[in-house]
Amino acid sequence: MSGSTFGSLFRVTNFGESHGPAIGCVIDGCPPGLSLSVEDIQPELDRRRPGTSRHVTQRQEPDQVEILSGVYEGQTTGTPICLLIRNVDQRSKDYGNILDTFRPGHADYTYWRKYGLRDPRGGGRSSARLTAPMVAAGAVARKWLAQELGVAFRGCMTALGEIDIAFEGWQHVGQNPFFAANTSQIDALEAYMDQLRKDGDSVGARLMVEATGMPAGLGQPLFDKLDADIAYAMMGINAVKGVEIGAGFESVRQRGSVHGDELTPEGFASNNAGGVLGGISSGQDLRVSIAIKPTSSIRTPKASINRAGEPTSVETFGRHDPCVGIRATPIAEAMLALVVMDHVLMDRAQCGDVELPMAAIAAQRPPAA
Amino acid sequence: MSGSTFGSLFRVTNFGESHGPAIGCVIDGCPPGLSLSVEDIQPELDRRRPGTSRHVTQRQEPDQVEILSGVYEGQTTGTPICLLIRNVDQRSKDYGNILDTFRPGHADYTYWRKYGLRDPRGGGRSSARLTAPMVAAGAVARKWLAQELGVAFRGCMTALGEIDIAFEGWQHVGQNPFFAANTSQIDALEAYMDQLRKDGDSVGARLMVEATGMPAGLGQPLFDKLDADIAYAMMGINAVKGVEIGAGFESVRQRGSVHGDELTPEGFASNNAGGVLGGISSGQDLRVSIAIKPTSSIRTPKASINRAGEPTSVETFGRHDPCVGIRATPIAEAMLALVVMDHVLMDRAQCGDVELPMAAIAAQRPPAA
Amino acid sequence: MSGSTFGSLFRVTNFGESHGPAIGCVIDGCPPGLSLSVEDIQPELDRRRPGTSRHVTQRQEPDQVEILSGVYEGQTTGTPICLLIRNVDQRSKDYGNILDTFRPGHADYTYWRKYGLRDPRGGGRSSARLTAPMVAAGAVARKWLAQELGVAFRGCMTALGEIDIAFEGWQHVGQNPFFAANTSQIDALEAYMDQLRKDGDSVGARLMVEATGMPAGLGQPLFDKLDADIAYAMMGINAVKGVEIGAGFESVRQRGSVHGDELTPEGFASNNAGGVLGGISSGQDLRVSIAIKPTSSIRTPKASINRAGEPTSVETFGRHDPCVGIRATPIAEAMLALVVMDHVLMDRAQCGDVELPMAAIAAQRPPAA
Amino acid sequence: MSGSTFGSLFRVTNFGESHGPAIGCVIDGCPPGLSLSVEDIQPELDRRRPGTSRHVTQRQEPDQVEILSGVYEGQTTGTPICLLIRNVDQRSKDYGNILDTFRPGHADYTYWRKYGLRDPRGGGRSSARLTAPMVAAGAVARKWLAQELGVAFRGCMTALGEIDIAFEGWQHVGQNPFFAANTSQIDALEAYMDQLRKDGDSVGARLMVEATGMPAGLGQPLFDKLDADIAYAMMGINAVKGVEIGAGFESVRQRGSVHGDELTPEGFASNNAGGVLGGISSGQDLRVSIAIKPTSSIRTPKASINRAGEPTSVETFGRHDPCVGIRATPIAEAMLALVVMDHVLMDRAQCGDVELPMAAIAAQRPPAA
Repeated sequence: MSGSTFGSLFRVTNFGESHGPAIGCVIDGCPPGLSLSVEDIQPELDRRRPGTSRHVTQRQEPDQVEILSGVYEGQTTGTPICLLIRNVDQRSKDYGNILDTFRPGHADYTYWRKYGLRDPRGGGRSSARLTAPMVAAGAVARKWLAQELGVAFRGCMTALGEIDIAFEGWQHVGQNPFFAANTSQIDALEAYMDQLRKDGDSVGARLMVEATGMPAGLGQPLFDKLDADIAYAMMGINAVKGVEIGAGFESVRQRGSVHGDELTPEGFASNNAGGVLGGISSGQDLRVSIAIKPTSSIRTPKASINRAGEPTSVETFGRHDPCVGIRATPIAEAMLALVVMDHVLMDRAQCGDVELPMAAIAAQRPPAA
Repeated sequence: MSGSTFGSLFRVTNFGESHGPAIGCVIDGCPPGLSLSVEDIQPELDRRRPGTSRHVTQRQEPDQVEILSGVYEGQTTGTPICLLIRNVDQRSKDYGNILDTFRPGHADYTYWRKYGLRDPRGGGRSSARLTAPMVAAGAVARKWLAQELGVAFRGCMTALGEIDIAFEGWQHVGQNPFFAANTSQIDALEAYMDQLRKDGDSVGARLMVEATGMPAGLGQPLFDKLDADIAYAMMGINAVKGVEIGAGFESVRQRGSVHGDELTPEGFASNNAGGVLGGISSGQDLRVSIAIKPTSSIRTPKASINRAGEPTSVETFGRHDPCVGIRATPIAEAMLALVVMDHVLMDRAQCGDVELPMAAIAAQRPPAA
Repeated sequence: MSGSTFGSLFRVTNFGESHGPAIGCVIDGCPPGLSLSVEDIQPELDRRRPGTSRHVTQRQEPDQVEILSGVYEGQTTGTPICLLIRNVDQRSKDYGNILDTFRPGHADYTYWRKYGLRDPRGGGRSSARLTAPMVAAGAVARKWLAQELGVAFRGCMTALGEIDIAFEGWQHVGQNPFFAANTSQIDALEAYMDQLRKDGDSVGARLMVEATGMPAGLGQPLFDKLDADIAYAMMGINAVKGVEIGAGFESVRQRGSVHGDELTPEGFASNNAGGVLGGISSGQDLRVSIAIKPTSSIRTPKASINRAGEPTSVETFGRHDPCVGIRATPIAEAMLALVVMDHVLMDRAQCGDVELPMAAIAAQRPPAA
Repeated sequence: MSGSTFGSLFRVTNFGESHGPAIGCVIDGCPPGLSLSVEDIQPELDRRRPGTSRHVTQRQEPDQVEILSGVYEGQTTGTPICLLIRNVDQRSKDYGNILDTFRPGHADYTYWRKYGLRDPRGGGRSSARLTAPMVAAGAVARKWLAQELGVAFRGCMTALGEIDIAFEGWQHVGQNPFFAANTSQIDALEAYMDQLRKDGDSVGARLMVEATGMPAGLGQPLFDKLDADIAYAMMGINAVKGVEIGAGFESVRQRGSVHGDELTPEGFASNNAGGVLGGISSGQDLRVSIAIKPTSSIRTPKASINRAGEPTSVETFGRHDPCVGIRATPIAEAMLALVVMDHVLMDRAQCGDVELPMAAIAAQRPPAA
């Protein structure tokens, strides 16, 4: 219940507001001796950055990260790493009209009820802008995990509103503004988004993220199950309303004889589990799906109330993503990396080692005669 | 990353194994002065108890709870409450055949990989039996929340395998073994389960749980969002593979103009949010859906490997629930109650008070002239 | 701020009251594969047990421990270990006269102010009886630390009231009821205590505890310094009013040229540091001193007030230790072991290994030519 | 075991190194609605600042604090407050000669053993410079505590090396560079320090800190006792080797008939307890003493080893405090304030209110007829 700190052993404390002077985070618990520089972090921030296509907010933020501590002569020292990102393109006046009223679907109302006051500029603390420091922290975790254990993370959009997005290959994901894993639907997606902007409306999205090269044995039996921590991480991303591991809601209709992934000497024969059994990683790929709701800030007028409780109508101008899901893939990857990193450290504490995935074990076995 | 402790301020530490001498929990942080006795807890345990219908495991466990500490002259003292439940109907020999092999879909394999050894009796620590102490702890939270704030919890099954279960009214839920909210489908559900048992197979389920009378302002902005903590709690229940808040995955296809719940002086006009905006409760009912996978322990043979990595086949006898979802409604309610309780205490710490729901505010307003 | 849970990775959750049905603890985070039985724990409990000499309380408690979970076929499984100790010799009526008034120096008053109610039987939760579960948990940590790293713990009384107790050798400590490290002063200590009981009074004590075979590198740089965590653990023992590490208060008068322990290829030349530099263990022995105040429950009348705030006088009958320090050595050893255990696991998480003490390194070096 | 985060509900995450670009902290959990600006924080930083007299290090650091987040229109919003202090007078070359060897009494050796590498510039993370962010965070806690509850903090030096410093009155403390509570000994203290510098040596100190206006009921019964958390906070300050609460080590020689503070309708008759009974505040003043060891960085040569384990000699030049205790009073006050703040929030969570001190209750009573 830390509010602004994510993780137990690889701990990321996030600070800042959308229109304050800066956002950033402090990473505590990064193992010493990791070679680290801005160049390791910036590319991930650039994947999430606003203003990169016409389908996302036009706010111009370079999201340039500065390392303030924890690195000496290019290596992590085991002490806290502070990452700072200055905000440069705040235009608070864009948001002036929402100070006294509450956007339907937005956190305006709940912040006001909780705190009795709120920073209305760009959503303040509730802005998705605060995911940038998590992407930066995730980049540190990703580098360590790749180097030490060969774990990698990837994700793609699987639905944009009513359009299901077919999976053709991971190589396509970086080639289009939607993180779509195909080339054939890009035109349709662009047209769909263009129409949406004309309508002054927004739409939801579904994403899938994976971890490959996973060690077995990560996760705690009862609470802090690996999948529970993943659900926590994903549901904590702005606008997420649903999380699935492996077969997810499809497993409701499955029989046990179908769902349970059979084991073979070479590995699992299927992955309905999504890489987690009994809360502990099996060494299969982690597979996670998330549902992202449509952006709350739209030009279409909606009924609301003001702070006196009187009826009014709200329409939001300013710069907003018409589909926040479009930039969410690097965020979900980063959060997944942070969860895995935390569990790797916990497993070292608890069991003194980290287990190879089953496939790696199989590879070590002599072939049957 | 506490492993066996749930919650930050209302903390429940769970212990025990399916076939050990006892299971139980220690509740730390319960406010002093709550009138509490076994009678407040036992009814909730009885709702979850095995052996109550032919559709659940036939293991006979009275699940009789004993209060070992924290209560003096019928009142909580503010010190830890230890709740103990003795196991009485262990038959470990039922499980002897799975000691050296791994049931597909089960935690056998991952426990072995993580710890290098495991308690194979009835699933040991990975057994759903360990939810009983959470139901007991949840009963304590529920009593306090009902009394202090008028918050109540309820849930029902909304799908059993391929059968969607219609909602007719909450009054039906306690009248049938499925926690179904209607009377018309009970025969069909019974027939479905009877066939499943004959087939030696199992099936998944979907449940819905709610909290009513919710205060506004619960939840932290960035991490420990109320919905993130709910997702964590729900995904941590055995066999859960998916969690939705409010519109959940349906929100992918919704437009912003549809999804955002409009505000009126009398309250919200809809509840796509499921009671949470920006991670903070709005005072609307919390609404959560979960997907439960089919039981892994089935009589149908499946391919697996043994501890030497050699191929083998597994079929599980012994006593198992053919659908673990059937007894999961009281568990999900309890976990939701534990999350809400924790956030109420956190909100008192942070903001010094707890906010009434919007409807309660509306009721206090003088009617418009 | 967990209240009843000690430790971060080797977590001990304590429950119970002096005169409730039982006391005990749940250990979460014990590494799997440790051979463990009641025989490993009971001897430490017996060292702390009441009723073993005429100089301690005559309450007869066998303090028989029961392992309820976490051990399968004689080995820890990595899941929570619940240790239960039934109370058998409660005589609550002894304490009836203190229900409405507050013993000077005792927690009666503060519990009442905090909670608005309290369990007055034997001090309820504030009784030193609650250290028994910590001694039991400490025994588990001690076994693991001895076996894996060769770390051992020992302690002795260094002052009983006005009598400074000379150190002659560790072998004497177990041979007298005072945990004194000599034989020559035992008669004097016995006479001193006999007079004190006649006077109906009590007295303080000073203890010293050590850890030997310490690895280097345990402790966090800023907070959770090893010595800070030791101070927290020691000051948390009932009646402790002061804690020193190494030279302690003597270091106020030392010059830097004297205090700083010189390093040689064979190890440190002195131990003013008490085994900790900059919050991190140096591989030297940990050395800790604590001051224990006199027991508050005495037969000598003292002025007090009742719950209405009116003046009154209090004298306490019932069974009490005239010097709580006499039985505190095993407690302090146990708490030190719990701190070290926690830090060993943290160091494994953070740095992936545990460093040998400097002496062990020196022993590995080839002798100079 | 967070390493760089202090507190549970009022959480301060500290980052930075002595010679890195910046130091600072993130405060999470500050209640909303506190009026806060740089002017509230800077005066406390100035009390601790180096370079203010000839008796402290001559490093010139303005310690100018910048508020990066968590404050909107001059009020805290309940979201994290990032406080940044840029380092401006790093001269890393001063320290170049200690890169390969270990200063006796310093953390050089233990950092190297723990992490395998270290930032040698000015002690890196082990520098007392890292207390500046805690003083800044403490200033925020102090403002809230003063305003909401009337709690205040103060401290003074009670011994400088062999010189015991008499207490004459709090008004003197701010009038001399030693935080001494008299005027008569200042010349002697100045002469003592001048000689010490000539000798190239350093010396220890003893400080006393107090909290006045304390509410009753703060602290947890078993762990997180208020005094245990204070001991943790104090022992965590650089160079502290001993902590006492109330009578401290003097209580060893006290009889119970003397030590226990009698209660009267107007309050306690004495304060041997130091304001804490059974781990919970009594409403009396908190009274804490700490022992600070002599600075390790001295010009006097001492025996040591290099990283290869070979014997060598070390003498330290550069800029150092000859007595780190001189600037430690504001640090100890700040740490005490942070502990109290954390416990006030915890008490609100747990008991829903905060109790007035006994004196305040007495003042409300009608006078006896």
